[in-house]
Amino acid sequence: MKTFCVDNPNQGLRTALVDKINNLTKPKGSLGQLEELALQLGLIQQTLSPTLQNPVCILFAADHGIESEGVSLSPRCITWQQMRHFNHGGAGINFLCRQHGFDLRLVDAGVDYDFPPDTAIIDRKIAKGTRNYLYEDAMTREELDKCLIIGAEEVEEINLSGSNVLAIGEMGIANTSASSLWMSCIGHIPLIECVGSGSGFGADGIRHKYEVLLKALRRFEEENKEEAKQDPIRVMEAFGGYEMVMAVGAMLRAAELNMVILVDGFIMSACILLASRLCPAVLDYAVFGHTGDEAGHKRLLDLMNARPLLSLGLKLGEGSGAVCAYPILESSVRMLQEMDSFSDVLIDKYF
Amino acid sequence: MKTFCVDNPNQGLRTALVDKINNLTKPKGSLGQLEELALQLGLIQQTLSPTLQNPVCILFAADHGIESEGVSLSPRCITWQQMRHFNHGGAGINFLCRQHGFDLRLVDAGVDYDFPPDTAIIDRKIAKGTRNYLYEDAMTREELDKCLIIGAEEVEEINLSGSNVLAIGEMGIANTSASSLWMSCIGHIPLIECVGSGSGFGADGIRHKYEVLLKALRRFEEENKEEAKQDPIRVMEAFGGYEMVMAVGAMLRAAELNMVILVDGFIMSACILLASRLCPAVLDYAVFGHTGDEAGHKRLLDLMNARPLLSLGLKLGEGSGAVCAYPILESSVRMLQEMDSFSDVLIDKYF
Repeated sequence: MKTFCVDNPNQGLRTALVDKINNLTKPKGSLGQLEELALQLGLIQQTLSPTLQNPVCILFAADHGIESEGVSLSPRCITWQQMRHFNHGGAGINFLCRQHGFDLRLVDAGVDYDFPPDTAIIDRKIAKGTRNYLYEDAMTREELDKCLIIGAEEVEEINLSGSNVLAIGEMGIANTSASSLWMSCIGHIPLIECVGSGSGFGADGIRHKYEVLLKALRRFEEENKEEAKQDPIRVMEAFGGYEMVMAVGAMLRAAELNMVILVDGFIMSACILLASRLCPAVLDYAVFGHTGDEAGHKRLLDLMNARPLLSLGLKLGEGSGAVCAYPILESSVRMLQEMDSFSDVLIDKYF
Repeated sequence: MKTFCVDNPNQGLRTALVDKINNLTKPKGSLGQLEELALQLGLIQQTLSPTLQNPVCILFAADHGIESEGVSLSPRCITWQQMRHFNHGGAGINFLCRQHGFDLRLVDAGVDYDFPPDTAIIDRKIAKGTRNYLYEDAMTREELDKCLIIGAEEVEEINLSGSNVLAIGEMGIANTSASSLWMSCIGHIPLIECVGSGSGFGADGIRHKYEVLLKALRRFEEENKEEAKQDPIRVMEAFGGYEMVMAVGAMLRAAELNMVILVDGFIMSACILLASRLCPAVLDYAVFGHTGDEAGHKRLLDLMNARPLLSLGLKLGEGSGAVCAYPILESSVRMLQEMDSFSDVLIDKYF
């Protein structure tokens, strides 16, 4: 099994960083979260002058067997259609990537479709969708291992090309369902509080989704020992999906490589929760982009003491909430690079 | 007296704009506030394809007579020192303007200092600070009129240079005090709920500030009829400051010229509240950038049903919260310009 080893950033520079930030020409603390980000980036990069280089948004896509139970408003075919659409450049994530200078890397983790060879979609397909976890585990242990390895490999390649900041997105009809189950098991939160509208369900749809997921959870509980619900490997194996496990592998490898991880919405929050149960230090590398309205997202964020930068009511996925938050990260870097300190200029220091 | 006439944007295009937004390739509403901004911009500019051109941040600065009563942690000299610092390029607002492509226009509305002629600071000085409103009105009616005219003139020049989007910032030690008084009078809110820490007061400082401001308010109440507290002209005249009244004039003229107004934090929120009591339609042109932690800011925003784009704990002023929010506005424009609609591509429309 692929394993990871993420260290907390060395804290030796903390005092010097805090001093630098406090001596910039502003009332202490008056740049709020920009100051916290600057400290975090400085520690990750072990420098008083962090930089952001070649930002990349990697987007993993896959289908889910549970989709056939009607747990999503959108049909399965939307997964491949949207991937072609991302490849073509006219989707939500595309304009955000262009705006903020991100390369977009599309990875087929397990889409139920044969993409024509003339697309830029990277073929890392495990299978054409996970199994239906109402009846059996979504994936085998071997498949899970492969997903972690592929996620890590993709990030290594990105890092080798000179990138030190990574947004991770996903496309996979029904993947809020797996996210809810991950959150409920690992976070010890009643399933009812973890299930939301996904791509747009009303109350009836949410109730049906909840009933299906509850059955799936009961099956898992019956077939496993109590502690399995706290085992991130078992939970990922049981509920999938391929794109989500690849994202977990990507996050853990990014942290090993001292990259900043921009975390997107509900699904990616579930992924980093799982990643953090494998290697808690991964959270030191995470910047949370967006709080959505998906039921349970705030609760999920609270489990990690996460305070996302934005709350714009986005519920698109695709990495949009992560990429949207990027200019704030850039601001924190510019603050450190471009602001004068009180010793540079004639100005009375005020606190 | 200078008067303004702001019309609500014509609503004729609303249906076509909403249709365009709803037919972009995403679940309906899934881009949250980006969709609301796109609608607002389309109506302001009367087009299905709005653009943002030559963004400018105008920063008005002035001193306040009340400063001598110890209502601010920072001393009066910080106003001119910071203005020189903005001119020099190493302050908070400078890196944000560079990052987001804003021209920064510095206006001396009434700073207690003679700036050397070699700076880019525009001299529109009314006087070297307002009068101390503990004892008398902060400014005369003539001065107030001049401030409104100057604010409008500055915006006209900006608009003539090809700009259609304006952030407004301020610098003026003690201007959270005037803002609290404006908000309390016009918003009918007990003063105690309007007074906060400004540039960094602790509990003792806030108490002292409150006591001074309460005395000033009592004086105003004794010398005026009850309805004066609801008269925006009387309130501005009584409490100043010059930079704030210029900002009010700038906002109203910007709205007349169909410009988008990016509203900064607490002080600028007080200014647009006053502006909206002169011409309610000004709010249709306003995009609120940031909710700060200053006591009362949320209450002030509620008076205008405003939901700012960011909440990053900024309390710098200078226009920083407005400029920081600009990329979100840009995203809304790109959404309309760059996203495919369902009729453009092979994709099942899902709701």
